[in-house]
Amino acid sequence: MSDLSDREIVQKASEWWSTGIIDIHPGEIAIRGYQIQDLIGKVRFPDMIWLMLRGDLPTLGQSELLEAAMVPGVDHGPHAPSIAIARMSVTCGLPVNGAMASAVNVLDDIHGGAGQQCMGIYYEIDAEAGPEGDLVQAAAAVLARKGKIVPGFGHRFHPIDPRVEPLYVLIEKAVKAGTITGRYAAVGRAVMTALNEGRKRPITMNIDGVTAVIFCELGFEPELGRGIFALSRSVGILAHAWEQKQQGGRIKGPMTKEIPYTYTGPARRTVPSDRT
Amino acid sequence: MSDLSDREIVQKASEWWSTGIIDIHPGEIAIRGYQIQDLIGKVRFPDMIWLMLRGDLPTLGQSELLEAAMVPGVDHGPHAPSIAIARMSVTCGLPVNGAMASAVNVLDDIHGGAGQQCMGIYYEIDAEAGPEGDLVQAAAAVLARKGKIVPGFGHRFHPIDPRVEPLYVLIEKAVKAGTITGRYAAVGRAVMTALNEGRKRPITMNIDGVTAVIFCELGFEPELGRGIFALSRSVGILAHAWEQKQQGGRIKGPMTKEIPYTYTGPARRTVPSDRT
Amino acid sequence: MSDLSDREIVQKASEWWSTGIIDIHPGEIAIRGYQIQDLIGKVRFPDMIWLMLRGDLPTLGQSELLEAAMVPGVDHGPHAPSIAIARMSVTCGLPVNGAMASAVNVLDDIHGGAGQQCMGIYYEIDAEAGPEGDLVQAAAAVLARKGKIVPGFGHRFHPIDPRVEPLYVLIEKAVKAGTITGRYAAVGRAVMTALNEGRKRPITMNIDGVTAVIFCELGFEPELGRGIFALSRSVGILAHAWEQKQQGGRIKGPMTKEIPYTYTGPARRTVPSDRT
Amino acid sequence: MSDLSDREIVQKASEWWSTGIIDIHPGEIAIRGYQIQDLIGKVRFPDMIWLMLRGDLPTLGQSELLEAAMVPGVDHGPHAPSIAIARMSVTCGLPVNGAMASAVNVLDDIHGGAGQQCMGIYYEIDAEAGPEGDLVQAAAAVLARKGKIVPGFGHRFHPIDPRVEPLYVLIEKAVKAGTITGRYAAVGRAVMTALNEGRKRPITMNIDGVTAVIFCELGFEPELGRGIFALSRSVGILAHAWEQKQQGGRIKGPMTKEIPYTYTGPARRTVPSDRT
Repeated sequence: MSDLSDREIVQKASEWWSTGIIDIHPGEIAIRGYQIQDLIGKVRFPDMIWLMLRGDLPTLGQSELLEAAMVPGVDHGPHAPSIAIARMSVTCGLPVNGAMASAVNVLDDIHGGAGQQCMGIYYEIDAEAGPEGDLVQAAAAVLARKGKIVPGFGHRFHPIDPRVEPLYVLIEKAVKAGTITGRYAAVGRAVMTALNEGRKRPITMNIDGVTAVIFCELGFEPELGRGIFALSRSVGILAHAWEQKQQGGRIKGPMTKEIPYTYTGPARRTVPSDRT
Repeated sequence: MSDLSDREIVQKASEWWSTGIIDIHPGEIAIRGYQIQDLIGKVRFPDMIWLMLRGDLPTLGQSELLEAAMVPGVDHGPHAPSIAIARMSVTCGLPVNGAMASAVNVLDDIHGGAGQQCMGIYYEIDAEAGPEGDLVQAAAAVLARKGKIVPGFGHRFHPIDPRVEPLYVLIEKAVKAGTITGRYAAVGRAVMTALNEGRKRPITMNIDGVTAVIFCELGFEPELGRGIFALSRSVGILAHAWEQKQQGGRIKGPMTKEIPYTYTGPARRTVPSDRT
Repeated sequence: MSDLSDREIVQKASEWWSTGIIDIHPGEIAIRGYQIQDLIGKVRFPDMIWLMLRGDLPTLGQSELLEAAMVPGVDHGPHAPSIAIARMSVTCGLPVNGAMASAVNVLDDIHGGAGQQCMGIYYEIDAEAGPEGDLVQAAAAVLARKGKIVPGFGHRFHPIDPRVEPLYVLIEKAVKAGTITGRYAAVGRAVMTALNEGRKRPITMNIDGVTAVIFCELGFEPELGRGIFALSRSVGILAHAWEQKQQGGRIKGPMTKEIPYTYTGPARRTVPSDRT
Repeated sequence: MSDLSDREIVQKASEWWSTGIIDIHPGEIAIRGYQIQDLIGKVRFPDMIWLMLRGDLPTLGQSELLEAAMVPGVDHGPHAPSIAIARMSVTCGLPVNGAMASAVNVLDDIHGGAGQQCMGIYYEIDAEAGPEGDLVQAAAAVLARKGKIVPGFGHRFHPIDPRVEPLYVLIEKAVKAGTITGRYAAVGRAVMTALNEGRKRPITMNIDGVTAVIFCELGFEPELGRGIFALSRSVGILAHAWEQKQQGGRIKGPMTKEIPYTYTGPARRTVPSDRT
């Protein structure tokens, strides 16, 4: 199957799986160069998230801002598909890992991708404006290229998203402390301005829009915005799976059986006689 | 489909999904009774995990001990199925949420359940001994009822698990500080003693055994031990999925193609002629 | 990391993945010894399922009975968690493979395991009775050891399960044709008799009970009963995912927002001041 | 939460889940208008797949062509991520439904989407050419708009894909029988011609290219091409999961431990002293 020597095959197989994240030997585990025993009890859990995703330990300011952005994403109640699926899953017999799997899976483009998409827009506006350009103009130009719906702005449920204001306060503090530059906070405000020009009822920023500001300020790639949200929501998924398990219930469908679903298909008919 | 009035049906449907975790109204989100804006920037992420799973905020001591136990579980490298599956998944086209789903799913009884099983054994020993009984005797009795393999003890890779010692130091500190009682630290030591009676090469406690001590000390149910480990490992799963995505690679199988798999089935044969 | 020679390492790695199912070489694919080009267009899809799971091609009678048992399992409507999750998943952005994953996952012990559990009971009754024993007595003895709920019997929705009768007709035909012995049809009837002794309102066999008869007659292991059901239900999962995608809808929760869920947690409270 | 009357809320909730696929009442299950008892034993399993996905029963010719296209996709051995993940999953403790979930999930754009993408290209060429246009010209035009890699053509492992020829024979038979028009068989050949113009070593059609011909001939939407492949591969996923379970093995990583992975990260370093 191969002209390589055994030596070369083993070498190639070894390289098949290569990583800069973790190095393991019997009795030794090192993460990004740090011995695991030097990390335990010494770094915070958000530090570990940062270290794993970014390669180095964050400053305390960076770590606390990341942490604050992870708090509000944990849950949005049983009307959220991710939460409902977690609860339904355990009534089908799944342990918590299985419930988490089925639920985290649906944090896809629509249910979990708004922050990532918003980060992409922010980065695009930053590049469009360049260091000297006008951000509102750049935002208007970028939004004109996108569709009407801007991820991170507006909410189908909350007229004002209560999670935005406290995070903006923390962003401003972090700018003052020199933890972040404030560039993407400005980009976010520029989107708001561009978006609401000429509108009577203003569209407000939602949780995805403000966490996107934070993740951009902290230098994360857009897809990691989705990933960090998934870590955060996993907490709520686990909590609801566990609560449902304690409530009991078997094969819990989406609605009580008292509410029928609507059938819209053909009326009863017979199988063609050449089949029977 | 139902003799209930519309009022009763709506009521029943409303109760179909009930939760004590989160209450949401337009413009308002409350977690376990706390307004979300009162939590953001004020509580740590491990506090949120505790609040979601337990219903109340932890003390700082509890929170820090939980946090310390979550640090070492994040990763065990590409030889771990959870990590390998995450990496393979992105080479098949999955975004990070999908990679996390396929990977977290396999944190089942064998790959993710050791801590949970160990907690079950600790709680059983605690009950067996009762407040006055001898823990080593109780441990011996409980172990005699279980099979030879005790989850949380011994490791197929690490002769001494480097993650255990630093966690035991934190446990002892927490006992001194009055954060925990030390009961399950004693149970863990009793298992060690009972397990190694008459053995020349002692079996040592591994990461699952020591985190089980911590989770029992903190009062978690065994299945939440599995769940918290899944939260922790999700970080490593995400980091490796992301690293693999940056490395590229398409449809990455478990081994290089230079290493063939072994076929053990029947030799070539012909389909019976009545089929052709 | 190893004292083995490169030759031995390659050999061991090759054996790490070994299978009797498929043999592949450049330009050649053989399934259970049959060249793939000899199978395409010559064997039926149910034959392939059997060949993959059992190692040999079935007789036409076996194949048709397996096929008949797979027809009714495809769907049980949007009240079934597996179907609802498939539909919710696509509204979150998942493609059909992702919707199938989240949905098939929940075909666990409770939602997908009844057939498997029923097969286990049938095999136990067969062993209990032995070749000469009385099946009803054996059934009563086995049921006495199990809980009140016998998987495969009774249905929370259908007073009479319309899928049972036509399958029993096919079972009887297959017995007459010598395809199967009828042993497990008899076991199934014995369970009915034992179960209903002294009951006024008889409990009837449901779809899981009758497919369990078929799978036992055909010699499948219990866990494959669950597996074959998962293959069957995957069809409905795919169909509903696809229908939902055509209907549209974004982030479709379990219930319309007009029906609130019930919050049962603590009233609003303030975060302890030492946190703020 | 709503100004609707209870009657209207129940009505809206009922419509929240609407389907043309299945209608269920106590004692009655109808699929696309057919009573389930009229289908069992009377229609083939591929007929059910078609009925569920398309709304009506296929002709026997359509059903047999669909069936033939589903046979070769069942398996491509342990080097395929979908198969490897299934096997690894059971060694982590998952039952077959869980193994299927983690594995089917990775049949995404890259590992499971080639057929879908190829169908998209075929449909685009059909539209580009129109009823009178030259297909090779249209194919060249469409390919010029796409990248170099054309899904469905070429194979990294098989110089000639042994699954293609027997399916092309069946396609030709079906054209002669009037089951299909042959339009997409011609489109497929046009892609071959356009793709190989001026090439010395011709690129050949692979399994995805030929099943895409069949699915287009049969009138399926591209995404259902992916879905049907997922149904087919689910069989192999189940078979390998089951074989692995019988082989045993615990926490089976991608490679034997004798082959180390390659660590490419930073050398050992110390945690900054302000953390400790």
